[in-house]
Amino acid sequence: MERSSHADRFAEMIGAAHVLTSPDDQAPFLTEWRDLYQGVTPVVLRPGSTEEVSAVMTYACQQGLKIVPQGGNTGLVGGQIPQESGDEIVLSLSRLNKVRSVDPAGFTITVEAGVVLETLQNEADKVDRLFPLALGSQGSCQIGGNISTNAGGTAVLAYGNTRDLVLGLEVVLPTGEIWNGLRTLRKDNTGYDLKQLFIGGEGTLGIITAAALKLFPKPKKLEAAFIGLPDPHAALKLFTLAKAQAGPVLTGFEIMPRIGMEFCLRHLEGSRDPLESAHAWYILMELSSASDAFPVRDLMESILGEAFEEGLVEDAAFAQNLSQVQDFWHIRHGMSEVQKPEGGSIKHDVSVPVATIPDFLDRAMAAVESLVPGCRPVPFGHMGDGNIHFNVSQPVGADKEIYLARWDEMNAVVHGIVHEFGGSISAEHGIGRLKRDLLNEVKPEIELDLMRRIKAAFDPKNLLSPGRVI
Amino acid sequence: MERSSHADRFAEMIGAAHVLTSPDDQAPFLTEWRDLYQGVTPVVLRPGSTEEVSAVMTYACQQGLKIVPQGGNTGLVGGQIPQESGDEIVLSLSRLNKVRSVDPAGFTITVEAGVVLETLQNEADKVDRLFPLALGSQGSCQIGGNISTNAGGTAVLAYGNTRDLVLGLEVVLPTGEIWNGLRTLRKDNTGYDLKQLFIGGEGTLGIITAAALKLFPKPKKLEAAFIGLPDPHAALKLFTLAKAQAGPVLTGFEIMPRIGMEFCLRHLEGSRDPLESAHAWYILMELSSASDAFPVRDLMESILGEAFEEGLVEDAAFAQNLSQVQDFWHIRHGMSEVQKPEGGSIKHDVSVPVATIPDFLDRAMAAVESLVPGCRPVPFGHMGDGNIHFNVSQPVGADKEIYLARWDEMNAVVHGIVHEFGGSISAEHGIGRLKRDLLNEVKPEIELDLMRRIKAAFDPKNLLSPGRVI
Repeated sequence: MERSSHADRFAEMIGAAHVLTSPDDQAPFLTEWRDLYQGVTPVVLRPGSTEEVSAVMTYACQQGLKIVPQGGNTGLVGGQIPQESGDEIVLSLSRLNKVRSVDPAGFTITVEAGVVLETLQNEADKVDRLFPLALGSQGSCQIGGNISTNAGGTAVLAYGNTRDLVLGLEVVLPTGEIWNGLRTLRKDNTGYDLKQLFIGGEGTLGIITAAALKLFPKPKKLEAAFIGLPDPHAALKLFTLAKAQAGPVLTGFEIMPRIGMEFCLRHLEGSRDPLESAHAWYILMELSSASDAFPVRDLMESILGEAFEEGLVEDAAFAQNLSQVQDFWHIRHGMSEVQKPEGGSIKHDVSVPVATIPDFLDRAMAAVESLVPGCRPVPFGHMGDGNIHFNVSQPVGADKEIYLARWDEMNAVVHGIVHEFGGSISAEHGIGRLKRDLLNEVKPEIELDLMRRIKAAFDPKNLLSPGRVI
Repeated sequence: MERSSHADRFAEMIGAAHVLTSPDDQAPFLTEWRDLYQGVTPVVLRPGSTEEVSAVMTYACQQGLKIVPQGGNTGLVGGQIPQESGDEIVLSLSRLNKVRSVDPAGFTITVEAGVVLETLQNEADKVDRLFPLALGSQGSCQIGGNISTNAGGTAVLAYGNTRDLVLGLEVVLPTGEIWNGLRTLRKDNTGYDLKQLFIGGEGTLGIITAAALKLFPKPKKLEAAFIGLPDPHAALKLFTLAKAQAGPVLTGFEIMPRIGMEFCLRHLEGSRDPLESAHAWYILMELSSASDAFPVRDLMESILGEAFEEGLVEDAAFAQNLSQVQDFWHIRHGMSEVQKPEGGSIKHDVSVPVATIPDFLDRAMAAVESLVPGCRPVPFGHMGDGNIHFNVSQPVGADKEIYLARWDEMNAVVHGIVHEFGGSISAEHGIGRLKRDLLNEVKPEIELDLMRRIKAAFDPKNLLSPGRVI
């Protein structure tokens, strides 16, 4: 690539200050936080408007230049990092950060792709509304990236995945053309629902530059309980009972094993066991309602009363105030980091049909314990969504590197069981570069073929995020 | 087409009894209930399994035969009726009518495409669950058709469109290949979400043969109020107030004008005005909850109390029992048929952003009254979804035929205003054959182009439902 002449042209389009060529300026765009990928790029572009993104893409298409869009650079599968070959241009959306309009009466908001998730949550809050998407990285991830990866998070049970929150999109296509699909309609049956391809398309079909999103009433009442149970089979029965009685008021149902609690007590500052004695499994159950009139606490007591009678629940602690709710969630959110001091951890981001979680856990835990005797499974996560972070800590005293060398082997075992249960090998995090080869193993050929046809129809020169997903 | 030899081959594949060639046998498949389309076909095929659908499609693809899939034949835009040219084979899904599995614990059900919607509702009910899709034609429409057209109905406000109810699909592609995407996962980020193209694809990209669907807790408590208001501006404020307080408990918010009430009182058996005096506009508001513990009546009173104080509401009647709830809905459901005895009615199935409904109604009503002085707009529908059935009755005493001759002219005026509001010219009913030309007028060229590329990628020979949608 003739770097300097392209850079000059880009400077004319978006301003020289936004064309980054020095290693120091580029550095934040080339490494992700888990240090799995270290990219190389001729230039990082930071356009300031949809029209500038369009100009860049039009030129890139004419010149045959490869482009990788990047949001807050919080992705976990390497999609946003340019390849080591050094021929991919990074296009950062972070300067497209305007809130275009807020409509509290109609419960919608329209924002540009580079708006940080937490900013978006705050904008909704200002008009007494909720934007429910909530993630660990919400302080830096951007809504464009959230949509491109169909982000999950902790509010999926009641509000759905990011896909369910999107009403309309504005997208710059690989040719540079702008598709204005920024509708805020709740019903629209006029042809193929194109936005669905860009949602979760991981930036391979077009660059999302703005989105119209749903807002919700702000919860006025919130209750949480920390529940000890004998096993995941009891947890499933509790889930079914709670969902049948609470419906959309059931906003959280997270599962954790005893070993995860022990790790927290050992390594997580400010954690204490909410229950007096030890239990094999825990559920963090949350109920919340937009309505002041809803006796949410009564409902929580009624559900747990029935569960006690049926012998599903061994003990339960109710949060007495918001601070205790946060204490409960502190343990749940700590589940991932407390595995680090325990040595190597082999991770899986999987989902199975909700009702099969107990059987899946029985099978998968036995399988990894048989593969690596002494290994310590710490499966936890969004049971109500069927999404388990199936992490497995190394045996006590084992060599970390030797253990981690078995990553692919253990993945193959667990993913094989996931496949038998009709599950997904990437419930939340997407495919990117990390799981592209895996995709070829788990998807039927006809599905891969349809995906390839769509990619070719949208990006015939394969210039946008090449080597990701498909 | 060599009819007899093809028919013989089809008989080998699916049994001679299911290959219909006589006019009497074919008749029910060739006319829709509004008598707008009268089709001609060489043969109606009624395969009994996914494999048989696949065999038919494989042969059709090899031989270059055109195929039109048909469900319950309740569509309103002609998509399911073969063209008058007589070269399209009708493929009826009605024999694929098995419930494959029900999972009350995980809140899912998996059914074949030919299952009648009401049967599906009943199957859910048997296990104490709700399948929320509800339509006027639910006694004969089939779930495969509902999904192919992304049907709307009366439960969209709380449960979403049909699209939102689908977890997975099994589809026979135009080549005859079977795509098994029958997953029941709540979270799955493994590549492009292909099912979204078949949902609302109106049978142009593949034939849906089975679907995995979401179930919900059955509502245990239900309250309805019939509310008189001065204008749609007050109705919008009431909607925003109710939604903010009730959240997902607000399950119905339907608007009707006084003239619609008068038509009902004149022509609808069993209707009476729930309120003592006349009001310019009416809202039917429904709250329902899965939870016995929810004081739904208190919430209704609290919302309306606040609305009275703010001067939004003039009068309101509360349903005292389920029979009165049904009486309220009887008026709402009667809004369409009571227009018939009043002469010709020019219809529009449109949506606009919810918060713009009052302004849209002001503009559109003034525009049609200016176009045809004395005409009587009867706009009603799902205000909470932004979906208005903008029907306009002829002036009293006018000639029906002369009035209806202005259908396209009035459509153009109304759709022009819809377009200015960023709305949709087909909120519920789809495009089919009826609105295909209209689509070319209202969509940007780039969007039509992307749709054409997708169609070509899936059905390069253009053999499946040709001439529909795009």
